[in-house]
Amino acid sequence: MKTYLDCIPCFFNQALRAGRIAKCDENKLKKLLNEIGMTLKDIPLENTPPETGMLIYEKVRKITGIFDPYKEIKRANTEEALSLYPCLKNRVEISNDKLLTAIRISIAGNVIDFGVNKKFDIKDEIDKTLKKDFAIFDYNKFKNHLVKTDEILYIGDNAGESVFDKILIEEMKKPVIYVVREVPVINDVIYKDAIQAGIDKVSQIFSSGTSAPGTIIKTCSDEFKKLYRNSKFVISKGQGNYEGLSEEKHPIFFLLKVKCWVIANDIGVKEGDIILKGINI
Amino acid sequence: MKTYLDCIPCFFNQALRAGRIAKCDENKLKKLLNEIGMTLKDIPLENTPPETGMLIYEKVRKITGIFDPYKEIKRANTEEALSLYPCLKNRVEISNDKLLTAIRISIAGNVIDFGVNKKFDIKDEIDKTLKKDFAIFDYNKFKNHLVKTDEILYIGDNAGESVFDKILIEEMKKPVIYVVREVPVINDVIYKDAIQAGIDKVSQIFSSGTSAPGTIIKTCSDEFKKLYRNSKFVISKGQGNYEGLSEEKHPIFFLLKVKCWVIANDIGVKEGDIILKGINI
Repeated sequence: MKTYLDCIPCFFNQALRAGRIAKCDENKLKKLLNEIGMTLKDIPLENTPPETGMLIYEKVRKITGIFDPYKEIKRANTEEALSLYPCLKNRVEISNDKLLTAIRISIAGNVIDFGVNKKFDIKDEIDKTLKKDFAIFDYNKFKNHLVKTDEILYIGDNAGESVFDKILIEEMKKPVIYVVREVPVINDVIYKDAIQAGIDKVSQIFSSGTSAPGTIIKTCSDEFKKLYRNSKFVISKGQGNYEGLSEEKHPIFFLLKVKCWVIANDIGVKEGDIILKGINI
Repeated sequence: MKTYLDCIPCFFNQALRAGRIAKCDENKLKKLLNEIGMTLKDIPLENTPPETGMLIYEKVRKITGIFDPYKEIKRANTEEALSLYPCLKNRVEISNDKLLTAIRISIAGNVIDFGVNKKFDIKDEIDKTLKKDFAIFDYNKFKNHLVKTDEILYIGDNAGESVFDKILIEEMKKPVIYVVREVPVINDVIYKDAIQAGIDKVSQIFSSGTSAPGTIIKTCSDEFKKLYRNSKFVISKGQGNYEGLSEEKHPIFFLLKVKCWVIANDIGVKEGDIILKGINI
């Protein structure tokens, strides 16, 4: 997805939020916003938003001197998600369509997102997402593809959300490689967050090599690029990965909750909608 | 009021909105945002937000080549407000406290504001504002002051809103000087908008000499500064004027609806609240 003009004010809000979480004082925060202002002219709209996100969070790290401002928030979110795990597993067990319930739960987990300026209530979100109609629902394609596949490349999004992903991974009953970011960026899942979520118990964990808050193939490691190109079943979670991968020519299933109207417009749905969308299938 | 860090993303949103109303193409809009980005480092937080607004709308005029992008919107808003005038007058006539009802109506008119990213329904707003409790209510001070005054300096805010101001001006039954901006900025009221609203029938119209979307005394003409310093009863409508005048040492009554959380925090009230606040009285 290209960068829309409306993403630009949002970049400043994201930087401000990250700087505050890193406990910057007002002078440092202003300096951070000034630097992003100066960089704006070098950011073409052809870039995907996570490419700009990558630049922004590099500046956040440089100016704040803090490598992982969201570290404690990620830990707490994962802990809270883990406390919900038994109840979520039970919801899957008692449902008529276990796979679909697990997909819904993994989408509900996508509400844990500090890149978007919204507060969230995870329990309330789960209840709503279990009942909500999908705006795009390529479930039959997903099931048909799943039966035929011998390995799934599952690209994670946020820490905490990984616990919800684990439930879907368990339900798919196929070998999974779970992809995390290389470098901390916002609250996106990195290796140690995935370990805390117990992802290593159900799949292999692999870094995409990127420091972008989304998967932009050209910023990924050669090892990941090879893995991605050879993969026949890719699941992409969340907005950041959608923004990076939406114009790829590879078969991908996007699972997400649409949390901003710019992305809603890009997909052709409404803010708040939930999506199971297959491309190039 | 100083500029808060949270005003900065909002400046970009305002520029984008103005540029779109001026029918800029995407390249020009990006150029506009780039230029604001480059200027950011020169904007100290000690500035009031309308000082920055002044710079932004200068850039909008320069890059779009359009002097008054909101011209047609202002005309249509004033026309719509004029169509409501007889009904609003009737509401005042049948009320128990005519002055207070006129104050409420003039605040309801303050919802017509394109500097703030909200859609509005003027009829609905009037109904709500006629019933709503004031968060700050210096009405007794206002009445006491009004009895003693022989002239009111009434600083207008947005075009269209002036029709609602006219109702309050009529109800105060004192000579009024109605202050407009010198240069078009957002949908703020300028001389010809005030004429369309019929303000010339009930008061003298005077330009503050500023091109800022608010009243910042240092940017005003010498004639206005003199008038302001000699005035004993100043009414300041809306957020832009509040931002410019909130730290003045002059007696001022602020009448506004609080439409953004940054200003709500500054005043110590909630977003959506209505205010009749006297300072230095």
